[in-house]
Amino acid sequence: MNEYIEEIIKEAQISYDNKDIPIGAIVVKNNKIIGRGHNDRLNTPDVTNHAEIIAIREAEKNLNDWRLDGCDLYVSLYPCDMCLEVAKASRVDNIYFLLERDNKNKYNSTIINQVEDDVSRETYKNMLSTFFKENVR
Amino acid sequence: MNEYIEEIIKEAQISYDNKDIPIGAIVVKNNKIIGRGHNDRLNTPDVTNHAEIIAIREAEKNLNDWRLDGCDLYVSLYPCDMCLEVAKASRVDNIYFLLERDNKNKYNSTIINQVEDDVSRETYKNMLSTFFKENVR
Repeated sequence: MNEYIEEIIKEAQISYDNKDIPIGAIVVKNNKIIGRGHNDRLNTPDVTNHAEIIAIREAEKNLNDWRLDGCDLYVSLYPCDMCLEVAKASRVDNIYFLLERDNKNKYNSTIINQVEDDVSRETYKNMLSTFFKENVR
Repeated sequence: MNEYIEEIIKEAQISYDNKDIPIGAIVVKNNKIIGRGHNDRLNTPDVTNHAEIIAIREAEKNLNDWRLDGCDLYVSLYPCDMCLEVAKASRVDNIYFLLERDNKNKYNSTIINQVEDDVSRETYKNMLSTFFKENVR
């Protein structure tokens, strides 16, 4: 398993343990993880507390700059429209997602690509479906 | 001048004085202002520090809920795509903007309306154009 993919699954597991929809994200610059986030919206009164935005804001704080040129965002699930727009605004170079959604082609862009890792995708897919079975809302 | 419009212009003036693009926003619920924000992206390493998102996050903190059903967002300038998606995700009932942009019809929605206040619009337009004259970037 790719090291970055391992990290986003670890982050997703934290959301899972908090009974929040398991989604994990990291921001990478020069092969170094400079931001991490897991979905935390259930437990915090902040609509922006999705994994991606938390990771992006942490990376920006670390760089002391809101511009993430030269950075890549890795996320376990194809981002929602809000997170896509924040990522775009932050100027990340690339967005890599593990598992697709129905709307995967909505954002027509060459900066978004799916990670090639069938084993990890299966692992994550199982985590998500188990979560929804256990947490009917 | 409508009280809410006066408040968003006051907020925009704070950005102006900070040498940041003057944009102000408030969130209103039951005729009460529960969140305020001014554009603060120049001085903070956070891509989400646009007026609208700051106001939304403050309102959510005050309500202890990320859902802003029953709330209206007032903003001096038609929001960027990022802020539109955050506002949508927060479930505000309405978005009222004072001054349009070129992309004003991009977001096809009945929840976004322009405030009818030509005098305030002119005041704000002058603030914006003076700002850009004084701060060439």
